[in-house]
Amino acid sequence: MSAQLKAFRCSFLDFVDDPFYVSELESVRYIVDGLLVIENGLVKELGDYESLQAKYVGIEITSYPGMLIMPGFIDTHVHFPQTEAIASYGEQLLEWLHKYIFPTERKFQEFAYAQKVAAIFLDELLKNGTTTALVFAAVYPESVEAFFTEAHRRNLRAIAGKVMMDRNAPDYLVDTPETSYQQSKQLIEKWHKNGRLLYAVTPRFAITSSAEQLSVASRLLDEFPDVYLHTHLSENVDEIAFVKQLFPENEGYLDVYDRAGLVTNRSIFAHGVYLTDAEFARLSEAESAIAFCPTSNLFLGSGLFKIEQAKSKEHPVKLGLGTDIGAGTSFSLLQTAGEAYKVAQLRKQKLSPFQALFLATLGGARALGLEDKIGNFETGKEADFIVIDPECTELLAFRNSEATTTLKELAAKVFTLMIVGSDRTICATYILGNLAYERPN
Amino acid sequence: MSAQLKAFRCSFLDFVDDPFYVSELESVRYIVDGLLVIENGLVKELGDYESLQAKYVGIEITSYPGMLIMPGFIDTHVHFPQTEAIASYGEQLLEWLHKYIFPTERKFQEFAYAQKVAAIFLDELLKNGTTTALVFAAVYPESVEAFFTEAHRRNLRAIAGKVMMDRNAPDYLVDTPETSYQQSKQLIEKWHKNGRLLYAVTPRFAITSSAEQLSVASRLLDEFPDVYLHTHLSENVDEIAFVKQLFPENEGYLDVYDRAGLVTNRSIFAHGVYLTDAEFARLSEAESAIAFCPTSNLFLGSGLFKIEQAKSKEHPVKLGLGTDIGAGTSFSLLQTAGEAYKVAQLRKQKLSPFQALFLATLGGARALGLEDKIGNFETGKEADFIVIDPECTELLAFRNSEATTTLKELAAKVFTLMIVGSDRTICATYILGNLAYERPN
Repeated sequence: MSAQLKAFRCSFLDFVDDPFYVSELESVRYIVDGLLVIENGLVKELGDYESLQAKYVGIEITSYPGMLIMPGFIDTHVHFPQTEAIASYGEQLLEWLHKYIFPTERKFQEFAYAQKVAAIFLDELLKNGTTTALVFAAVYPESVEAFFTEAHRRNLRAIAGKVMMDRNAPDYLVDTPETSYQQSKQLIEKWHKNGRLLYAVTPRFAITSSAEQLSVASRLLDEFPDVYLHTHLSENVDEIAFVKQLFPENEGYLDVYDRAGLVTNRSIFAHGVYLTDAEFARLSEAESAIAFCPTSNLFLGSGLFKIEQAKSKEHPVKLGLGTDIGAGTSFSLLQTAGEAYKVAQLRKQKLSPFQALFLATLGGARALGLEDKIGNFETGKEADFIVIDPECTELLAFRNSEATTTLKELAAKVFTLMIVGSDRTICATYILGNLAYERPN
Repeated sequence: MSAQLKAFRCSFLDFVDDPFYVSELESVRYIVDGLLVIENGLVKELGDYESLQAKYVGIEITSYPGMLIMPGFIDTHVHFPQTEAIASYGEQLLEWLHKYIFPTERKFQEFAYAQKVAAIFLDELLKNGTTTALVFAAVYPESVEAFFTEAHRRNLRAIAGKVMMDRNAPDYLVDTPETSYQQSKQLIEKWHKNGRLLYAVTPRFAITSSAEQLSVASRLLDEFPDVYLHTHLSENVDEIAFVKQLFPENEGYLDVYDRAGLVTNRSIFAHGVYLTDAEFARLSEAESAIAFCPTSNLFLGSGLFKIEQAKSKEHPVKLGLGTDIGAGTSFSLLQTAGEAYKVAQLRKQKLSPFQALFLATLGGARALGLEDKIGNFETGKEADFIVIDPECTELLAFRNSEATTTLKELAAKVFTLMIVGSDRTICATYILGNLAYERPN
C-alpha cells in the first residue's frame, strides 16, 4: 500500500502524562488551532496549523471549526451481551445477576443472535466515541466468535474473551474447567492478534469459578503470555462475603486470584469498590489495573470507589473507566466521567475534568498496556479519534458560547460535557483515520 | 368562548393514588388504548378508546401510536437564573454559591438579560416534559418580572418568587428586610393568580436571611395567606453547622424557620438531606413539603436523601422531585427520577418506577397543593400532558421492542426511560390541550 496522507484541522486535546501525578501544564496538550496529519491510519504529526501547513501543502484537509478532537475513548470494562439488559429494575449485584443477566446471556449460545447484538453494541460504542473496549462475552464460544467477527469487520482495537464459569449459576450457563480451557485456547489461537483484536482470559468472578477453573485460567496465561486476564473484584458487600465463604482459607478476595496466579501486569479487575489498603498495595506491586465503573456502582448501589487511593503516590494502581453495561447506565464515557465526579464529590474528593478525561483515554490505554498503540496523538500511534461538539444541544450552546483559549477555560468547557453531554456530543468517530460514525443532523 | 372539544388517542399512564401507601393496582391507571377528551383546555374524560369513541363521533382526534401519554412533569425546586451555571466544577454547596452562583445571579438585575434566560429556561422545561415548576428567581424584582412575563406568554402554571437575602452574600446581591418586603408585596399583587401564575415568598436559606428578614417573610404569608413559602433546608453538613452558629438558640435548622412562622402547609423545603426524625415528624404535622433533588445532591456531594423516611406511614411528608438546576445536572424529571433510584440503591432501599413517576406528577402536585388542578387526568383538571416515546433512541428501541400490556411490563419499560431516557424521550408537550413543544425529527 502506498503511503496515504490526510489531515484534520481543529482544536485538539490529549494527554502526554498523568494529571494525577504531574501538573496540567505538563500533562495536558491543548492546541487551539491544530493540524493532525495521518499516514496509513497512524499519527504522523500533530502541531499548530500555522507551523505545519507549509509542510503539507496539497494534502486533503478536513476542517472541524468550533469542534474539539480527542483520542477515542477507551472502555476498560463492559459486557456486550448485556446491551439489552440495561436498566433492569430493583436488585443489587447477586440477585440482579440471577434475575436478569443469566437468562439474558443464555440467548448468546446462538451465533446469529449474538452477532446481531454485537453489531448493535459496537454501533453504540462508536456513537458514543468509544474506539477501544475490554469486553465480556458470554460463556458460549459462539458469543465470542460473533463479537470478534463484528469488531474485525469494523477494524476496531478490541479485547474480549469467553466467560469461564463452572458453578453457582444455572446449568445452561456453566462450563467446566476442561471445556473452558479448550474453548478459550481455540479462541485465543484464532483471534488473539488477529488484526487489531486481542484476547482476555475471562473468569466471571470468584463466585462462579472453582479453584480448579481459576488454575486453568492461570495455565492459559502461562501458555499465552501476552493475553489478558479480565474479571470482577470486590464490587459488593454480599459478593465479598460469599467469596469469603467459598474460599475460607484465603486472606481476602484479591488473594483468591493471587494464589491462583491471576494477579499480573496484564490483569484488569473491574470495580474494586471495597479493596483494602493491602489489596491496593498488592495491585500496585503487581502492576495490575482496575476498571472503575461509576454508573454501575451507583445503579446497583454497590458503593463508592476510592479513586484517590488507586491514584496514590505510594501505591499507584493503573486505572481506567468502565461503562459496565448492562449494570452501567450509559455507553458514554463522558457521562461515565461525570458520574465518576459525583462519586468523588460524595466522598469529599475532587476529580478534575482533565483527570477524568485522562482515565477515559491515555489512562485507559495504560491500564490495558496499549499505551504504545492508542490513548493519545503521539507519532506512530493508531489514529482512532473523535470529534466533539461542545455546543451539541441548545443548553450546551448557551452554556459554552464563549471561545476557549486557556487550559482553565477548556477544563470548564469539557467539564460541562462530562456533566450534561451524551452521545449527541460526539459529532464523528474515526477509526485508523477513517470515518466510522457521523452524527445525523 | 364556545366549548372546544378535542381528543387524543394513545396509551395513558397516570396516578389516582399514592403508590408508596397503596398497591399499584389501586394507584396506577394504565389504559393501553385510551382516549383523552379535552374541553376548553381541561380534561373532560379519559377512558378506553373502544368505550368512548361512539360518544365523541366527529371530534378531532390526534393519535400517537406506540407512544405513552402522561401528565406533564412537576419540578418542585429549580433556579432559573442558574441555567447558565449548570455543571460548574469542583465545589460543594457554600463554596459553589460564592464562586459560581452569586456572580451569575448578579446578571439578573437587568430585565432584558433575565428575560432572555427565562425564555431559554422555559423552553428547556417544555422540551423535557415539565409543565409546572416552583422556581427561584434572583434577588432583583426584575428577574421575577422577566420570569413571569415569559411564563405568562406560554400560559404555564408556574410558581416563582424574588429571592430574599440580607446577609452573608456579596453587597451587590443583598436586599434588606424592608426592601424585600416591599418588593415581594408588589410582585405578589401583580403576579399572584395572574392567569395560571402563583407567587412564592422565597428567602434563600437561613444563612442569608437575618431573623428580622425571616419574620418579614412570615408577615407576607400572613397578609397573603395563599402564597407559598419556598426555601432550602438541611442540604449540606457545613451549611447546617453554619446555621447552628448563626442561630445558636434554636433547636435545629428547621426550628429556625418554624419559630419564624414559616413551616406551614404551603411551605416547600428543598433538600432535607440531613433531617432528624423529629424534623420529619414536624414537617409531617405541619403538612409541609420536601423537594428531593437527587442530581443536585450527588453533583454537590451533599448526601443521600432518606426517601423512605419522608414516605413513612407514621409521619408522611409531602414529597416532590426537583431538578435544582444549576446544582442539578439535568432538566429532565425522567433522569432525575433515575438518579433518585440510584440514591435509594446506595441506601439499600427500593424506589419503584411508579413511585418515582408519582413523585414527578401527582406527588409533585400534592406537594404544591395543586392536586385539584394538575397531576393526573381526573375530569376538570388542566390538560397539561406529555407524549413519551419509549423507543426514542436506537438503544431504547432495541431494549423496548416488545409491546406492553400489563402493569409489570409497563413498569419495566418506564424504568428504562428513567435510567436511559432524556429530553429525546419527550415527543411532544401540551399545555391546556395545545401543542407547546414538539421534538424535531
